[in-house]
Amino acid sequence: MVNQKKQGLQTIIFEEPPVLTAWATIVGPKEGEGPWRSDFDWIMEDYEFGESSWEKAESKLLRETVKLAVSKKNYQPEDIELLVSGDLLNQITSSSFAARELQIPFLGMYGACSTMAEALLTAAMAIDGGYFERVVAAVSSHHYSAERQFRFPTEQGVQRSMSSQWTVTGAGAVVLEKGIYGGPRLTCATIGKIIDLGQKDANDLGSAMAPAAADTIKTHLSDTNRPSDYYDLIVTGDLGKVGSALLKQLFIKNGVVPEPNYSDCGVLMFNDNQDVHAGGSGCGCSASMLCGPLLKKMVQGKIERLLLVATGALMSPTTSFQGESIPGIAHAVALENP
Amino acid sequence: MVNQKKQGLQTIIFEEPPVLTAWATIVGPKEGEGPWRSDFDWIMEDYEFGESSWEKAESKLLRETVKLAVSKKNYQPEDIELLVSGDLLNQITSSSFAARELQIPFLGMYGACSTMAEALLTAAMAIDGGYFERVVAAVSSHHYSAERQFRFPTEQGVQRSMSSQWTVTGAGAVVLEKGIYGGPRLTCATIGKIIDLGQKDANDLGSAMAPAAADTIKTHLSDTNRPSDYYDLIVTGDLGKVGSALLKQLFIKNGVVPEPNYSDCGVLMFNDNQDVHAGGSGCGCSASMLCGPLLKKMVQGKIERLLLVATGALMSPTTSFQGESIPGIAHAVALENP
Repeated sequence: MVNQKKQGLQTIIFEEPPVLTAWATIVGPKEGEGPWRSDFDWIMEDYEFGESSWEKAESKLLRETVKLAVSKKNYQPEDIELLVSGDLLNQITSSSFAARELQIPFLGMYGACSTMAEALLTAAMAIDGGYFERVVAAVSSHHYSAERQFRFPTEQGVQRSMSSQWTVTGAGAVVLEKGIYGGPRLTCATIGKIIDLGQKDANDLGSAMAPAAADTIKTHLSDTNRPSDYYDLIVTGDLGKVGSALLKQLFIKNGVVPEPNYSDCGVLMFNDNQDVHAGGSGCGCSASMLCGPLLKKMVQGKIERLLLVATGALMSPTTSFQGESIPGIAHAVALENP
Repeated sequence: MVNQKKQGLQTIIFEEPPVLTAWATIVGPKEGEGPWRSDFDWIMEDYEFGESSWEKAESKLLRETVKLAVSKKNYQPEDIELLVSGDLLNQITSSSFAARELQIPFLGMYGACSTMAEALLTAAMAIDGGYFERVVAAVSSHHYSAERQFRFPTEQGVQRSMSSQWTVTGAGAVVLEKGIYGGPRLTCATIGKIIDLGQKDANDLGSAMAPAAADTIKTHLSDTNRPSDYYDLIVTGDLGKVGSALLKQLFIKNGVVPEPNYSDCGVLMFNDNQDVHAGGSGCGCSASMLCGPLLKKMVQGKIERLLLVATGALMSPTTSFQGESIPGIAHAVALENP
């Protein structure tokens, strides 16, 4: 098999780019009150989603999102050969319990909020490599299951700092297929390195992740020899207002990307009056924006080339308690209309 | 690219099987007192490993194991194009902090104790697919970091039930490369489905995982049209004494595998007098057995064909508290001498 990648580069170029043939997103009530209400498939009426715990609700959210994406192509879950999935909960139990119900062979990923890009690029390798023809990449996050795991018991009502972000309740699922179907193609992907500049403030994850996003975007453009305006939109996962402002400074410093075609899913997700402080975060943030408004715009031809740069803060409450700084990572996937 | 896999099968056959060109394992003091002392590269003198916490010790263990494996081929970490890694800690921080120090592009996996097989097969797809030429797959577990996270504060001295297993302190790392080098090859891999027969006892994970191991082994043999004695050894990851006894019953019921060529890393890891009850467990159990005695036996020609079936229990303390049963998974990788 030909080596499609120059040695030492972090970017994979797919020879036969897998096609995104269907996708779906289900989001929480608050996300449904934001600017993209009509672009989401389904808005949960409450955070319990008919379950007895937030964790069970999140797993159901992920499972139902996968089923909805699959149904759009008139497939059943058993028609899918591989599920590549992850989430924010300890031991990614939203994903494993969803995979239990779906009965699809399962690879579990953890990349914190970068997981949607990680799952998409792993799914694309599995298809373009010739191993599978029909793969689903999916992730979820849930505001209340994440808050109580990563921060404080939700009932305690701790005041949130202005640099903190609001974990999005949402899941996104994409069906990727081999072959000649229409639809956006996943043409290339850049696997990130961990960048950690010593930021320790778990209430400002955007600033911890921004340097990783800058590194991955720069590497992607350099590896592919593409100018930054090759893409109609370069969108980071969940840097939020603070992190994306820092990223813009890093862009200026590195002379990499002009501002007009850059945005951030965490900034886009909510309206200013929704009291989310620095914006949205969580795996579900970039996944819901991608599987909602962004892919819709690609189908409409309003975006022809999209670079999704999902960003993750790879710390845990334990590492923060132990005085460690926050390792950031960003993976990029290029989606292009044929 | 040719599709090397019949649709609907769970098994990948690699066209140009990646070669395991180097590997290493570092284990804890207790593991060093077991039957395989001389087969491990390095035995830690204590569980702190020069660090101020067990979690930091585990991350160092993983990092040093990767560096040791890489050094055996006279490579530096920067010569490695991709690190595929996971562990048992929440948010797989052993892996992400190791990846931070190693500065290798990083994909994080979570498959509980099945992660070594998951990482190996993902690394093999990344190489055989033509995307990378030199990839490291690595995992770790640490007895004390795992105990306090999954069970009780270690200092509490809670009595362990006889069906419980001892989380292995150990890490394994394998360098996989494309091309014509000698050494065992990763010829095919079977990605497991989740099997959950309703077992809820977190003190008997072996029984929760055994049905998944049985399913994956049966599927692997069926997908590849191989008789069970094709392999000199079929070895599960960490079913332990209770789980592997159950697996043998399932073999008899399904008429799948004759007993002589089956064993389990959890059973093999310790001596009977080491007071580990049902045997070893943890990602590091199968990884250390693989990167220690098993690959050594392959190099010596004592094993020509090995099927490693790493098994994972994909629950969390939270899901157990919420009354959920334990989803089991098993991934298989076939290693064959040329």
